[in-house]
Amino acid sequence: MADTPSAKRQRSSKDVPYELIYWPSIPGRGEHVRLLLEEAGAQYTDTAHAEDGIKTVLAQIDGKNLGDDLNPPPLAPPILKHGDLLISQTPNILLYLGPRLGLAPKIAEDDDGIYRVNALALTVLDGLSNEAHDTHHPIATGLYYEDQKEESKRCAKEYIANRLPKYLGYFERVLKGKASGEGPWLYGGSLTYADLVLFQCIDGVKFAFPNALKRLEGSGDYKGVFELYDAVKERPKIKEYLASDRRQKYSEGIYRHYPELDEE
Amino acid sequence: MADTPSAKRQRSSKDVPYELIYWPSIPGRGEHVRLLLEEAGAQYTDTAHAEDGIKTVLAQIDGKNLGDDLNPPPLAPPILKHGDLLISQTPNILLYLGPRLGLAPKIAEDDDGIYRVNALALTVLDGLSNEAHDTHHPIATGLYYEDQKEESKRCAKEYIANRLPKYLGYFERVLKGKASGEGPWLYGGSLTYADLVLFQCIDGVKFAFPNALKRLEGSGDYKGVFELYDAVKERPKIKEYLASDRRQKYSEGIYRHYPELDEE
Repeated sequence: MADTPSAKRQRSSKDVPYELIYWPSIPGRGEHVRLLLEEAGAQYTDTAHAEDGIKTVLAQIDGKNLGDDLNPPPLAPPILKHGDLLISQTPNILLYLGPRLGLAPKIAEDDDGIYRVNALALTVLDGLSNEAHDTHHPIATGLYYEDQKEESKRCAKEYIANRLPKYLGYFERVLKGKASGEGPWLYGGSLTYADLVLFQCIDGVKFAFPNALKRLEGSGDYKGVFELYDAVKERPKIKEYLASDRRQKYSEGIYRHYPELDEE
Repeated sequence: MADTPSAKRQRSSKDVPYELIYWPSIPGRGEHVRLLLEEAGAQYTDTAHAEDGIKTVLAQIDGKNLGDDLNPPPLAPPILKHGDLLISQTPNILLYLGPRLGLAPKIAEDDDGIYRVNALALTVLDGLSNEAHDTHHPIATGLYYEDQKEESKRCAKEYIANRLPKYLGYFERVLKGKASGEGPWLYGGSLTYADLVLFQCIDGVKFAFPNALKRLEGSGDYKGVFELYDAVKERPKIKEYLASDRRQKYSEGIYRHYPELDEE
């Protein structure tokens, strides 16, 4: 599959900025992609800030889009375009970008680090993004929150009582393990994109469930996790980004603050 | 991160069978890993069929396990051990195995195929495994089905009406696109692990929602998807595997058949 004319065309087309295709006005899953690009100081465009950016998103996910010669159509954003390559799925985009941006070990015969970082990122996204989203949409993504509010209350209560501590405890354990290396990071003693994903997800659940997170942070049981959060937040490029207007406010996306879903 | 003594030890330790660490008595998410190994005729061991296999699973996911020098602890099975490498997360294990077993393009500078296959596999797992699971556990994984039966009915109805056709229609569109190449497969004109994942998930939803799937198949709108399903099922090694006692029956796992959740 490798040595086709198109693969050659592709290689020479990579010396161009990354293009992030994502909904305007929510940080959403696109935010993970942005944090990698920002931390690395990479050149990129972002439909969230482009005139008619939403049209680009809608054209990609149109039910008539069959993709192109090289790329299957994407089901949903975030979508990354880089030269001839167009890919979707948050953890997949991060996997592509991570080694290129110095935020994960290179993919090589003699280094399996990327699979460890990918596992950590997938686990963060499962527990602190997908499951957090489902607390306000437990029945169906296609229904309004108001139409599943009672189910949401039950779901959020279980999430805060059981799932949040389970995931926070897991990452605390990862940080205590030897494979995490020295310093505040999850893997190998260096910042990887798994750390950026964990930062963003903690930031999101802090917004959604401020009371619960305050209690969990205050318990001291997840010291390493919150130290990692602070360490990412203080990185110069991330700090500059978070203060810029490129960083969008949480609203009606994955992380929503409904006081009735938080603990008292 | 690459050139450490441990990375070298790792390389020489790879000439050993794969070890799948997964719950006994359900196909579950471990089944995706098995199908790759079976299709490739790879040597592997499986805790599902080992005496005390469950102890191996429980030791890995124990709340005191901190992993080892190289590997963070896994949160949940499936877990793959290969020499010194130990990784978790279904799509991550498939990503590791796919290129090694000839079921995905090799990861190389001049070939981005692996990211397209990974995106497809992630999308299948999202829509036809994770969401299918949530139809019988919409409120909390930690509660019994009986304690969320009414919510499950509502969730399954929405899933069958909206999500199943959305995902089947998406994969039909992928199959119509040029990037799928010739033949019945999703990407590049060759069998990849994304096809095996789609096969297993269709098989699972057929078990869970037989009436709905019969109607959807009969509609003719997803002809390519069901042809792919049949094409995988007829591959000699898969056929032999499915008839063997290594293939476990569906029961109380991701795919469950509750007649009240299916359509009439």
